[in-house]
Amino acid sequence: MARNHDASVQNGLDIANARIASSIDVSGIKHFIYNGQDEWQRKKKLVAIMSKDPAFDKSKREWMTRTEKYARGLRMINRMYELGQNLGWSRQDTNAATTLLDDPLPISLHVTAFEPVFLLQASQELLDKYTSLVATRGIFGCYMQTELGHGSNVASLETTATYIPETKEFEIHSPTLTSSKWWIGALGKTATHGVVQAKLILPDGEDVGPHLFFVQLRSLENHRLLPGIIAGDIGPKSFGAFAATDNGFARFNHVRIPKMHMLSKFAQVTDDGKYVKPPHAKISYGGMLYIRSGMVTSAGWVIAKAAVISIRYATVRRQGATGPDGLEQQVISYPSLHTRLLPILSRAYVYIGLGRALSQSFQAMASRLSSGDTSLLAELHATTSGLKVLCTTASVQDMENARRSMGGHGYSAFSGVGRLYGDMIPSVTFEGENFVLDQQVVRAALKAFRNLFGLDGRSLPSPSTIQGLPPSTFYLRLLASPSNEPPILKDSDNSNSSWNDPETLIVLLEWRAALLVHEMAQTAQDPDSTIYQRVSKGVTEAFVARRVGDMISVLKASSELRRNDINVVSQLYILYLQTNVESALADLLSFGLLRIENPARVGLSRDPTRGLRMAISNNCLSILPEAIGLTDALGFSDWELDSALGVYDGKVYQALWDKAQTDPLNSKEVADAYEESIKPILMRGQTMAERSKL
Amino acid sequence: MARNHDASVQNGLDIANARIASSIDVSGIKHFIYNGQDEWQRKKKLVAIMSKDPAFDKSKREWMTRTEKYARGLRMINRMYELGQNLGWSRQDTNAATTLLDDPLPISLHVTAFEPVFLLQASQELLDKYTSLVATRGIFGCYMQTELGHGSNVASLETTATYIPETKEFEIHSPTLTSSKWWIGALGKTATHGVVQAKLILPDGEDVGPHLFFVQLRSLENHRLLPGIIAGDIGPKSFGAFAATDNGFARFNHVRIPKMHMLSKFAQVTDDGKYVKPPHAKISYGGMLYIRSGMVTSAGWVIAKAAVISIRYATVRRQGATGPDGLEQQVISYPSLHTRLLPILSRAYVYIGLGRALSQSFQAMASRLSSGDTSLLAELHATTSGLKVLCTTASVQDMENARRSMGGHGYSAFSGVGRLYGDMIPSVTFEGENFVLDQQVVRAALKAFRNLFGLDGRSLPSPSTIQGLPPSTFYLRLLASPSNEPPILKDSDNSNSSWNDPETLIVLLEWRAALLVHEMAQTAQDPDSTIYQRVSKGVTEAFVARRVGDMISVLKASSELRRNDINVVSQLYILYLQTNVESALADLLSFGLLRIENPARVGLSRDPTRGLRMAISNNCLSILPEAIGLTDALGFSDWELDSALGVYDGKVYQALWDKAQTDPLNSKEVADAYEESIKPILMRGQTMAERSKL
Repeated sequence: MARNHDASVQNGLDIANARIASSIDVSGIKHFIYNGQDEWQRKKKLVAIMSKDPAFDKSKREWMTRTEKYARGLRMINRMYELGQNLGWSRQDTNAATTLLDDPLPISLHVTAFEPVFLLQASQELLDKYTSLVATRGIFGCYMQTELGHGSNVASLETTATYIPETKEFEIHSPTLTSSKWWIGALGKTATHGVVQAKLILPDGEDVGPHLFFVQLRSLENHRLLPGIIAGDIGPKSFGAFAATDNGFARFNHVRIPKMHMLSKFAQVTDDGKYVKPPHAKISYGGMLYIRSGMVTSAGWVIAKAAVISIRYATVRRQGATGPDGLEQQVISYPSLHTRLLPILSRAYVYIGLGRALSQSFQAMASRLSSGDTSLLAELHATTSGLKVLCTTASVQDMENARRSMGGHGYSAFSGVGRLYGDMIPSVTFEGENFVLDQQVVRAALKAFRNLFGLDGRSLPSPSTIQGLPPSTFYLRLLASPSNEPPILKDSDNSNSSWNDPETLIVLLEWRAALLVHEMAQTAQDPDSTIYQRVSKGVTEAFVARRVGDMISVLKASSELRRNDINVVSQLYILYLQTNVESALADLLSFGLLRIENPARVGLSRDPTRGLRMAISNNCLSILPEAIGLTDALGFSDWELDSALGVYDGKVYQALWDKAQTDPLNSKEVADAYEESIKPILMRGQTMAERSKL
Repeated sequence: MARNHDASVQNGLDIANARIASSIDVSGIKHFIYNGQDEWQRKKKLVAIMSKDPAFDKSKREWMTRTEKYARGLRMINRMYELGQNLGWSRQDTNAATTLLDDPLPISLHVTAFEPVFLLQASQELLDKYTSLVATRGIFGCYMQTELGHGSNVASLETTATYIPETKEFEIHSPTLTSSKWWIGALGKTATHGVVQAKLILPDGEDVGPHLFFVQLRSLENHRLLPGIIAGDIGPKSFGAFAATDNGFARFNHVRIPKMHMLSKFAQVTDDGKYVKPPHAKISYGGMLYIRSGMVTSAGWVIAKAAVISIRYATVRRQGATGPDGLEQQVISYPSLHTRLLPILSRAYVYIGLGRALSQSFQAMASRLSSGDTSLLAELHATTSGLKVLCTTASVQDMENARRSMGGHGYSAFSGVGRLYGDMIPSVTFEGENFVLDQQVVRAALKAFRNLFGLDGRSLPSPSTIQGLPPSTFYLRLLASPSNEPPILKDSDNSNSSWNDPETLIVLLEWRAALLVHEMAQTAQDPDSTIYQRVSKGVTEAFVARRVGDMISVLKASSELRRNDINVVSQLYILYLQTNVESALADLLSFGLLRIENPARVGLSRDPTRGLRMAISNNCLSILPEAIGLTDALGFSDWELDSALGVYDGKVYQALWDKAQTDPLNSKEVADAYEESIKPILMRGQTMAERSKL
């Protein structure tokens, strides 16, 4: 039977031809995406080493049990640090290597939660003792906030830390079942230490609310739990995901820790048990903002993987009508495919760029915060909450849409996209549940609105106030002058070039945000069922749209990129804005920002949304020839993607076939289940059938 | 440490109080849902037996490997038939028992695809030989259509069946890699026989397109593959789902089968190799329609599980603001929760009722079809395509929204909802990929439109034509008279009772369908990026809305249910319509079916969608006290739900704790990974930290 048949040849031709047809300079755009050639070279170097190291082999992970996946995860961490030591990796090298490990691992909690909080909030004494152990992973940390009974509402956490002035100790205690720490990454079987969020109880019994305490959990001699501590793994997660991370539980039975183990850079307790308030109530938010601000970037990169896999597959998959070459058409040529996939690609590009800008804002905020200056905190808090909701929601939706675009084969574990989805999906409920964060975004927006326009919404702010608006509320300027009118787009003709103009699109989204907040302010006493989500989304999307406008301006002025590349990436950014406006249509129509053109007979007028939708179709068509180039520019190796459908050479059917042959179920021609179950089923049936003949 | 603490007591109280507060007659509604007391009693009897039988134990499935899950699945099938034989189950009993097994199992392909197609299309000779073996599972079947290279486009399948007149045989052959049958449920390691979809090649070389052939795959003596056949499992699926089903591949190397193995009830080949056409080109669609028409019911029941779990959890979970009882509020009291969850419950109720009606339509169609009467086929085909898209899309979205509503704990595998999602999600791409089906729906709608109104859309059909419109195109009557005007809802006041009137809501959805099709007809030469999805959705939702209207009428006339129960279920049906209208707002606003009220200054007018949104909020508030009663009425046992968060007694924290203790990772205090990886990580770090001090 022909193994070497023409489908693989055609697969290879199709993707090669797409590469030839693309007009962009892939390596130029790659350096742009990686923020310079150095970062790209760093990654390339690391991929070359790690993809060949057996510790990072991915070919067997689908068959492993949960316990085996956990053990594999720790082997990878150990090997990575070993390599780092042997090869003299810099801190940036190690960070980059960590992001290359595509299984969520216990170490990420040490790096993203435990270490930053410890460094930001520990006293100098504690820092002196532990900083280098934390930095070298001589101790392995976790961040213990969530409890079985409480997540979002930190104020109601039940774990207590009672100060004992006699011994200058705190006593950490879990008074109830629901006070069990729960979901804590790396706590289950790995961590030696943790930062515990607990209610600080003073000697007089006063509860001054949640504070952080540094607690040793396991012996550094034999890794056994210390006396008074019960801990373990909370069990598997949905979708078989996050298997290598030991999200854990812990209960404390009157566990004593030294006084200096309170993270007391800001709030403190004196030796005799008096409470010293922090200089700013929200100063401890820094860690949370760090995690959230990193989420935009990681959302961008994970969307990027889904985009690369699905676009490559759609390029080589042929199905349906016969095309000009006499073969069935490449499915990416169908509008129902490319108008789904290219917007996903556009979000990858936008979030990667946006995340970089956000990390810079975070660094600026953090350096001010470390000297007690909280001036940038509120602005970053306002924007990161909404961004976290937006980018986590969009990323899982994009991944799932990309997976579905691949039809039946998309459901194979070998597509690789389901795994990405399962690992990303908790981001919509962790680090601030998205619906709860929506309410914070709305509160901040309403506060800004009332500060500007008064409680009745009718005062007019001064021009200088308007000029001083921070980016998070910049859209409110639109309401500041009675003569400001939103642009009314009535033209349903697809020749209307406004739909390709970034500024028009951005201002529409800003008007929508402004009008939603205005509406919310009028009805805040009696909100309807969806207003919080609508306002939060509106406000955040206006903020992002303006940033995308800035990104386009920066891009246009770039001297690094070729003119053609600038144009193509700009089109991708504009596609982002266009599909954002499309998703906002119900609001835009509600507030009259899009009108029905000359309604001759109600209902039989032309669809006013058609102009935008045609602009999206046309923009997709113009980006389409560059799709493979733009995905190649994201710079993923086959090892990183680990997808039979996203292989660089396009030979997807051969890859699916080869993968299937490695399935352990196929190791025996006749499965063990035959003797045990199948044979009895068949024999019973045959006997019954025989009897029925008699 | 207190194990028996108050959270579990409070959990139990909260759910008990909710049961007391509910005013409905749970068992009355239960009998309504189960279509009579008999079906409910049947299920109760089966659950009592099966939930106690070790074969159907679910407590260890989360820890199993794929191979173990497959073996467990077949054990369940074997045990079920053994029980059926021992206890004298009727065919209905066995069917009901099959639906109680919540893992997708290889037997379901035998029952839903192989057997019906065989019975509908085999010749009498073949029926005589195999019918009882098929019915008793003396042979185990699969349905082999999809190939590695082709899914939706059946016309391009590559497998051939060449007639050899000399020996009166067909030769089944897989000429290429891409012609490998792929994704076939039960083919991998289980099936003994299969119905193969293959291109029929006549002796003169003519290809008369895909036909069905009955092929033995494995020996009935030892289960080994027959000569010339290569087959195996295609590997794991995304989300760790569908693990017990051996979706398989197969390749045929010139495999001969007797002539009578062609399923030749309709199309035939004469002994000397002449082709005899079927009486109706689409007569073989019956099997596909059977599968699709069953999907509405199964979507309803799976949404129901997600609704029960999430509503119970939201009832006992307390978080956030202090409520009137001095405790934190039950989260279901938050509008952001109950306005998400009650619409999910409403879809469960609607789809269960709708699915029943659809099965009746299918039975009517099938009985006519078996006598060659295809008059009902087109209508059922038109409606099932759209319904398949609608109910599969809605069910996975509802499950995922239900899971997310449970916050962090929803991501635990113990929530049970992720598993439902993973098993249901392939339904959006199998049995007709949803985007492809959308195009079929649109084609049918355009054809109906043009038949009525001519190619220019301006002819007016006769009143009798309008009166004879079938349910699938009933909405087109609205365009038939120039004096018909859509209702214009301008009132943004929440006192507007129109939003609670089913007929208003239904007619709005029908107008939207009619206007979308009208728009599509005008722009069909140059369609925009989303018009197919919008039209398909619009048309199908109009059809369903009208059915829901009928369901409300039937309900109101019921003599079985108490008046109060009728009112509550009606409210749930109305909530379905309201949220459907809400999801259609962009279309309604586009076509002027909702208007801005007295726009004083553009943009600063009131939101015209507020009236509807407030009606939804208020309807949810009035249903809320009945939520637990309505979920209990769905009649699920804890064994069926297999969810720590959906336990009947409400003690969710205890259930999570208990489940976690059974995690194999917790069987040792110090994980094996310690010596292998954790200790090296810590030692390396400690050495480095030590050195840095020197």
